[in-house]
Amino acid sequence: MTSAHDRERRERAIATARRFAQGAAVVPVADRLRALADAAESPLPDLYGEGGDLDGLEREVAQVLGKPAAVFMPSGTMAQQCALRVWADRTSRDAVAVHALSHLVVHEEDALEVLHRIRLEPIAREHRPLTVEDLVTAPGPYAALCVELPLRDAGYLLPSWEDLVDLCAAARDQDIPVHLDGARLWESQPFYDRGLAEIADLADTVYVSFYKGLGGIAGAALAGPQDVIDAARHWQHRHGGTLFGQYPYVVAARRGLERLEDFQAYAVRARELAVALGAVPGLRVHPQPPHTNAFVLYAEAEAEALTEAALTHAERSHDWVIGRVGAADVPGWSTTEFTVGPATMEWSVSELVEAVTAIVSSCERPRSE
Amino acid sequence: MTSAHDRERRERAIATARRFAQGAAVVPVADRLRALADAAESPLPDLYGEGGDLDGLEREVAQVLGKPAAVFMPSGTMAQQCALRVWADRTSRDAVAVHALSHLVVHEEDALEVLHRIRLEPIAREHRPLTVEDLVTAPGPYAALCVELPLRDAGYLLPSWEDLVDLCAAARDQDIPVHLDGARLWESQPFYDRGLAEIADLADTVYVSFYKGLGGIAGAALAGPQDVIDAARHWQHRHGGTLFGQYPYVVAARRGLERLEDFQAYAVRARELAVALGAVPGLRVHPQPPHTNAFVLYAEAEAEALTEAALTHAERSHDWVIGRVGAADVPGWSTTEFTVGPATMEWSVSELVEAVTAIVSSCERPRSE
Repeated sequence: MTSAHDRERRERAIATARRFAQGAAVVPVADRLRALADAAESPLPDLYGEGGDLDGLEREVAQVLGKPAAVFMPSGTMAQQCALRVWADRTSRDAVAVHALSHLVVHEEDALEVLHRIRLEPIAREHRPLTVEDLVTAPGPYAALCVELPLRDAGYLLPSWEDLVDLCAAARDQDIPVHLDGARLWESQPFYDRGLAEIADLADTVYVSFYKGLGGIAGAALAGPQDVIDAARHWQHRHGGTLFGQYPYVVAARRGLERLEDFQAYAVRARELAVALGAVPGLRVHPQPPHTNAFVLYAEAEAEALTEAALTHAERSHDWVIGRVGAADVPGWSTTEFTVGPATMEWSVSELVEAVTAIVSSCERPRSE
Repeated sequence: MTSAHDRERRERAIATARRFAQGAAVVPVADRLRALADAAESPLPDLYGEGGDLDGLEREVAQVLGKPAAVFMPSGTMAQQCALRVWADRTSRDAVAVHALSHLVVHEEDALEVLHRIRLEPIAREHRPLTVEDLVTAPGPYAALCVELPLRDAGYLLPSWEDLVDLCAAARDQDIPVHLDGARLWESQPFYDRGLAEIADLADTVYVSFYKGLGGIAGAALAGPQDVIDAARHWQHRHGGTLFGQYPYVVAARRGLERLEDFQAYAVRARELAVALGAVPGLRVHPQPPHTNAFVLYAEAEAEALTEAALTHAERSHDWVIGRVGAADVPGWSTTEFTVGPATMEWSVSELVEAVTAIVSSCERPRSE
């Protein structure tokens, strides 16, 4: 089976799916654009990062996060480089303290180092959040401490509130600016059961994303002190991120911000699902309980077989239940992420467990060696 | 009058304008998004630079420009840095030969130098296009020669076909890759009266824009050899330009590509307008005749007075005729760009000349010293 054929089959299954078990249902592009047309407030478009609904979005984000200023950016990869470059320039330091599993280290092709000559220095490598000990025992000094909430590649893990407070306080004691990689900050808020502004107040700058739980098309925001945000806008421009018009993204982001209250219910449902799925023989869940609306599901099935089973299930039932599958460390086991969103809430827990169980059961058992 | 008040007045005048004399009429955001919904082909969105209508757009651009491959990028600033970085890496050279008035030098906050450590070396500073003499007498060697078609800040100037061929051939003789800054390549095509692929064939890589004459929302494409485009995609990713979804830009860009035939009529109209406006006392046009659909208009009026007169005219007549006005070098004269587009074609030449003349006449004459 060719890769192009795989992709085509997968796309057809998604396009013809009637129900989605994770995140938000995939809506046809035309319907999506019509919904945005209905939601647009300003008749005038924004222009090179100013005007239209963009100014209002930036004000809303700043307010929600309790920061003096915010700037919309096309992507988090750009937003974080801009923020960390400003901190590096201000501190005259060239290394940022991060977790080795953070997005900056794993998924950005060394952009910060290659474009900005800022080293990412991992101060922890284990599958657990950063701790205050990681920071105080690290060589330093750092241009910034970057804390990813949650640490996605470790299984969407969050530090406890006390640990997070201690970590950020230790950084400030060393005059190290704290930057939050809040790609899933909205998703983290229920775990702390504190306001977003109270969480953001632990940090100097915060990046948030509009296209994950908030269901936007793309885009991010960086919030922080006015002078830092002003400086970040110049880096955004240099990156080629000051776009002529961004209103589709802006309108979608503003709609997303209306959903902030929903993450509490998603987190509850994720915990319920984790209990139920974890009780099925041949399935394991990490972390147990999940910290956010997402967790990692391990299944005793070869990755290729599970991929095929999930696709066949989608083609037959028109229910899209399981996304990307990879091989787990343990031979014969595979791993996939499960993210609770509005589409998930259309299912009962038992319906969902039944669907996942049916898919996994339909896989061939791994051959014994 | 405060700057915020100025901006608000200007925005209100644009929002309530019934006719536009330049470019495309400003359409309310909601109407724009609805039109895109009608134009979308793929029901599935693109995802991180793949799938949906994006693949088709990239194929179309490559085909129109006669290049093996093309990649969509959110902006030209990004597209050109990615292209020039690839050429610098391949040639192991760190300077790009450019005109001192090119967009790269004037409008990008030294991004190529700051982010990529590639120097922009101006090989000409006069208000005329680059020539083969500029290149052969320059020190070199260069990672690339960048030719902006047309040279906007010199008045949208194009070199003759023969001069362009000679310049590009000289670069190739020196093993210098040629990159076309084709931000207005579509607009340049009628001047040469040759196919876009024949023009693009003079260069190794070509950047084109979707939001100027083509009327898109934002975005650009870079076309060239497959391996160069593949490498450029990695730089796009590092810049933070591999966005989760780009379909609003993509659908708008594809609609824009249906308009390529229209630029011939815009160029003709620009020449007609230039003749008529140039005959009005107190007005001058540069270049005469215009090379593209755009030219620079000089008026014997203070910039502030002309700005106010244009705004007052728009408020009273609901015709938006003159855009940004600046001070000319000559005291008492001001300068503004005039760009012919679909909205312009709704006016007769005499109607337009009448409107411009009325606006300029309503300005106070500059005080004699």
